[in-house]
Amino acid sequence: MSVKTETKHYEIVRDTLNRYNRITLDTLKVFLPRSEPRKYLYDLISDYPSRAGKGFRPGLCIATCKAHGGTVRNAAYTAAALELLHNAFLVHDDVEDDSEMRRGAATLHSEYGVSIAVNVGDAMNALSLRPIMKNLTTLGPNLTVSIFSEIEHMVRQSVEGQAMELGWVRENNCDLNPNDYLRMILKKTCWYTCIHPCRLGALIATGGSIDLDRFNRFCYYMGAAFQIQDDLLNLIGDQNKYGKEIGGDIREGKRTMILIHLLSKANRSEKKYLRQFLATPRRQRTEEDVESVYSLIEKYESIDFARSCARQLAGAALKEFHNAYRDASDSTDKQFVHQIILYMIERDL
Amino acid sequence: MSVKTETKHYEIVRDTLNRYNRITLDTLKVFLPRSEPRKYLYDLISDYPSRAGKGFRPGLCIATCKAHGGTVRNAAYTAAALELLHNAFLVHDDVEDDSEMRRGAATLHSEYGVSIAVNVGDAMNALSLRPIMKNLTTLGPNLTVSIFSEIEHMVRQSVEGQAMELGWVRENNCDLNPNDYLRMILKKTCWYTCIHPCRLGALIATGGSIDLDRFNRFCYYMGAAFQIQDDLLNLIGDQNKYGKEIGGDIREGKRTMILIHLLSKANRSEKKYLRQFLATPRRQRTEEDVESVYSLIEKYESIDFARSCARQLAGAALKEFHNAYRDASDSTDKQFVHQIILYMIERDL
Repeated sequence: MSVKTETKHYEIVRDTLNRYNRITLDTLKVFLPRSEPRKYLYDLISDYPSRAGKGFRPGLCIATCKAHGGTVRNAAYTAAALELLHNAFLVHDDVEDDSEMRRGAATLHSEYGVSIAVNVGDAMNALSLRPIMKNLTTLGPNLTVSIFSEIEHMVRQSVEGQAMELGWVRENNCDLNPNDYLRMILKKTCWYTCIHPCRLGALIATGGSIDLDRFNRFCYYMGAAFQIQDDLLNLIGDQNKYGKEIGGDIREGKRTMILIHLLSKANRSEKKYLRQFLATPRRQRTEEDVESVYSLIEKYESIDFARSCARQLAGAALKEFHNAYRDASDSTDKQFVHQIILYMIERDL
Repeated sequence: MSVKTETKHYEIVRDTLNRYNRITLDTLKVFLPRSEPRKYLYDLISDYPSRAGKGFRPGLCIATCKAHGGTVRNAAYTAAALELLHNAFLVHDDVEDDSEMRRGAATLHSEYGVSIAVNVGDAMNALSLRPIMKNLTTLGPNLTVSIFSEIEHMVRQSVEGQAMELGWVRENNCDLNPNDYLRMILKKTCWYTCIHPCRLGALIATGGSIDLDRFNRFCYYMGAAFQIQDDLLNLIGDQNKYGKEIGGDIREGKRTMILIHLLSKANRSEKKYLRQFLATPRRQRTEEDVESVYSLIEKYESIDFARSCARQLAGAALKEFHNAYRDASDSTDKQFVHQIILYMIERDL
């Protein structure tokens, strides 16, 4: 693939993401109350969504709907719910990881405290019911109920993935392998970032007449590639583009593919050091320690390993794409989904 | 009212609460996954509900349903959802207030950390969708959609009330009056503890053929009396019965009716002292300080003031009851609701 073609591809990706993201945020806005209490609730609810997100989830949902013969309008309420749930997830995820930055600014709990951030996330989750219910007016009760089932499954997979990851950190688990990681991100990331957005888009377009499981494998590959790229950007990205503090995952002790690879390759004394570093309470880990871990990551080429995993997963997604979208006739939306696969692992934000 | 009659009344209340609570927990159990990840997720989800709760919300829902001609079976899924949402609310509320005890044991976040507790609460909120959706099989799509609308309104009122209370603590607001407090607990407590449980019961029984707003005023009075009694028990209750650490509200700086009364009565130097105490980070407040605040509460008879408010509210609820339940023919369930009003302010747990 030539550089020129790649650039062109990403123009379609960026343009489509921008367009569908704008529609989603416009749709979402209508469901966000402008009433009291504003200062510690409703003003904060529009904070994260207003920071420029990438819009992968609404993008995949709307594009898959259109690629299967549906309209933007039919998918817009569901896309808005997905985006709101995603932002609720981010607010609580930042509390859970005690992250400092999100989308280029302080995380909600760093600014307003854990209590208010937890409550704001709860409010966002509750508000997401409104656009889903609004589907009744456009899609009728049967499809709306199916959408609820998809969403319930999606949120449950995410909390299961979070529980796995948080449990590993809590128990200071240092003996994980790449398969453990892939099982965890299937739950934490893939279902809600790729699988359900695509399933929902196709469900809305076809009224449930096609088997939605066709998207599971494709979206798992794509979502896993996306998550590994996210972990890579957390280490080697440009903070201005990526929006989170670089190296945050190391400070938070997150079990990324990179750390898991490093733990498996480190010699006995290095592993002992890493285990101790990871057992130290997050706020007591020093910059020197983070630097030392980073040196070990370089020594064992763990970044290259993770990058190669992401490439393999993207390659598998490219192959599986044709099966997943076999009933979608050729269109810009179908091309967008095809091209977003490589974008997932080549993006710098 | 003689002591004998009162005792008899509370037997009906206790017996009805026990019965409906058992049915609710049995119904709920079916919706709680027994799969992995257990240790930091599904085992913890059944923790709070398994601690003996009072079951006010399912009790009011099922009794109001039966009093309006419905069946226990018709209300059971909704009662289960209410109880699960209530427990999710408690898990996050304990994080937000940094409370130490709940129902006689350590709060979830004291035991497992904030991260895991936030995630467990999210999972409980997500799981509550399942019993609500199950209504489709017994009540059909129209009623199920109406139930969703009620629940969405209920959760939103609760997070608005939480935002008000957390905002007051954050800004160290020391100039509140009883009306501010009543507005806050209408949102934080009344909608989800009384108003919506009764509305939902009547909605399910009548298929929406009666105007549900008739319950709002009655349940507001009853719920406010309930909350003030809860604040009183937090100060003067028996920890073994009440289940939370006594004086916890003072340590947490909660703006209860008692504290608001005290702040309005304290002289200039006492108010300055109270303001400083409340500005101190929660974990730095000493036992001596809590004792001093308690002495001021005694000096200004703030407990008597709050108790008298609760009694007035219960009296107003007793009057309003006949209007709210005017279409319910006489039954044990209707008697239960009538008698629970005084139980709300005379209970010791």
